Amino acid sequence: MVRTAVIAVIGAGDAPPGVLELALETGREIAARGASLVCGGRGGVMEAAARGARERGGHTIGILPGYDTRSANPYIEFAIATGMGEARNAIVVGSADAVIALAGEGGTLAEIGFALKLGRPVIAVRAWPGIAGIDHRDDPVAAVRLALKLAA
Amino acid sequence: MVRTAVIAVIGAGDAPPGVLELALETGREIAARGASLVCGGRGGVMEAAARGARERGGHTIGILPGYDTRSANPYIEFAIATGMGEARNAIVVGSADAVIALAGEGGTLAEIGFALKLGRPVIAVRAWPGIAGIDHRDDPVAAVRLALKLAA
Amino acid sequence: MVRTAVIAVIGAGDAPPGVLELALETGREIAARGASLVCGGRGGVMEAAARGARERGGHTIGILPGYDTRSANPYIEFAIATGMGEARNAIVVGSADAVIALAGEGGTLAEIGFALKLGRPVIAVRAWPGIAGIDHRDDPVAAVRLALKLAA
Amino acid sequence: MVRTAVIAVIGAGDAPPGVLELALETGREIAARGASLVCGGRGGVMEAAARGARERGGHTIGILPGYDTRSANPYIEFAIATGMGEARNAIVVGSADAVIALAGEGGTLAEIGFALKLGRPVIAVRAWPGIAGIDHRDDPVAAVRLALKLAA
Repeated sequence: MVRTAVIAVIGAGDAPPGVLELALETGREIAARGASLVCGGRGGVMEAAARGARERGGHTIGILPGYDTRSANPYIEFAIATGMGEARNAIVVGSADAVIALAGEGGTLAEIGFALKLGRPVIAVRAWPGIAGIDHRDDPVAAVRLALKLAA
Repeated sequence: MVRTAVIAVIGAGDAPPGVLELALETGREIAARGASLVCGGRGGVMEAAARGARERGGHTIGILPGYDTRSANPYIEFAIATGMGEARNAIVVGSADAVIALAGEGGTLAEIGFALKLGRPVIAVRAWPGIAGIDHRDDPVAAVRLALKLAA
Repeated sequence: MVRTAVIAVIGAGDAPPGVLELALETGREIAARGASLVCGGRGGVMEAAARGARERGGHTIGILPGYDTRSANPYIEFAIATGMGEARNAIVVGSADAVIALAGEGGTLAEIGFALKLGRPVIAVRAWPGIAGIDHRDDPVAAVRLALKLAA
Repeated sequence: MVRTAVIAVIGAGDAPPGVLELALETGREIAARGASLVCGGRGGVMEAAARGARERGGHTIGILPGYDTRSANPYIEFAIATGMGEARNAIVVGSADAVIALAGEGGTLAEIGFALKLGRPVIAVRAWPGIAGIDHRDDPVAAVRLALKLAA
């Protein structure tokens, strides 16, 4: 079986409307291009991206911090209960072929660090200007296109 | 979204033909009943169960020990790269609504222990007679039926 | 630097007095023989064993489920905050040269499974009669002696 | 028992001489001030810092990526075998009261992200100018002093 590409979308669990809109569009574009989405499974950027992917019929995987699969947001199709708390971040990016990073805080920064360590391409969308070794795009369509190209 | 039930199948990575046949039938029955399969993503029982589930059109999730999603067996649809080594066992059972245990060794025993700790029902099929707190069934069809009943 | 032997003591977080007494004596004997103790860092068997080791001047390491090092019992000298929940069990036995298992439930069973998987010797003290691949002793002094012999 | 302060030192596993010298001095100062050191247990910054701490009689804890405690550098007194690969980074900073960050790459960045997420103070020494929410000092003595003050 040839697995479809899996793209991680990372960013703040508590994000402003403009960032949530970017996450929603990113999720839509990932599904529209036939890829699957992996994220942290909770709210904010994670929920908006999963909602976008499900709207376009894409598969969504949520890597949860606790052991309760019901804590996933309603757009998560497959809930992975890690019980690992914040260390689950390494699994989110490890399970992806490429990573799209929106604005966020420490948890998102940890995910970018892990992605760089694991050799997963990272594309930031209007965020993270100070980090070396990642790409930048201004809109979700361009970011997903680059993510799929680098993931290939 | 209402998620479908997820059943874990656990057992030896290096198993004799009779155990592999049980795993294959268990995977088929899980998919036939509309549930999804989660397993450790590698060979032996994990591969046979995933193959059975895919033959019946079910979804399959593999929780891998390393960071390389290509190390999954060919019947894994969604590969979760934990990088956690054997400690991934806690995630396999934590992500399931119920657990079906075939014959195995230390890793399988650890998964049974975690399942008991996390309150996930465990049904053993022709294995693990000495463990308290789990159910036993002689065939995969009965085991999957009980797993889905207890998971509800 | 040659590290001293490290012995894990595992067992119930909520244990009856007879088991706690065994844990206390096991901890004392580990320290009296110059070894260090590793455990899950919380109450019950973990606390009694750590108290015994500290009474004899031994070093004690607690592998905690959460991120708060203050959740360790008062006899833990070095608190490791894993944030991994129950999956920390793999770290408890992985960090030990040998494992002494007292009576317990699912979490202890998971630790025995991991120890077998990782090739760490396991000595049960008046517990776990149904598990293959482990040794049994009736008293802590004999268990620690065997643990140190097998760890060498 | 009142535990002594634990300071994490993080940085590249393969570092230039100037950075190793900073790590050595940081380790010495941590021990001279009566604190213990936690690090990733391998080479480069981790080894230099542990060597410095041991030179001054301090305790050293190494949080290892694999299951083999013999993979620790020779200055690690207590080797914690996580089997978690890079995700062990969360444990390194979670087990510390404060974090001192030297120059590094993705793994160090992930640790800084986790520390921010977990609320552990981070003091960078001649590194990481682009990261918000951390303190900066030019020399190890000042960094350790601030770390112990913020950890209190």
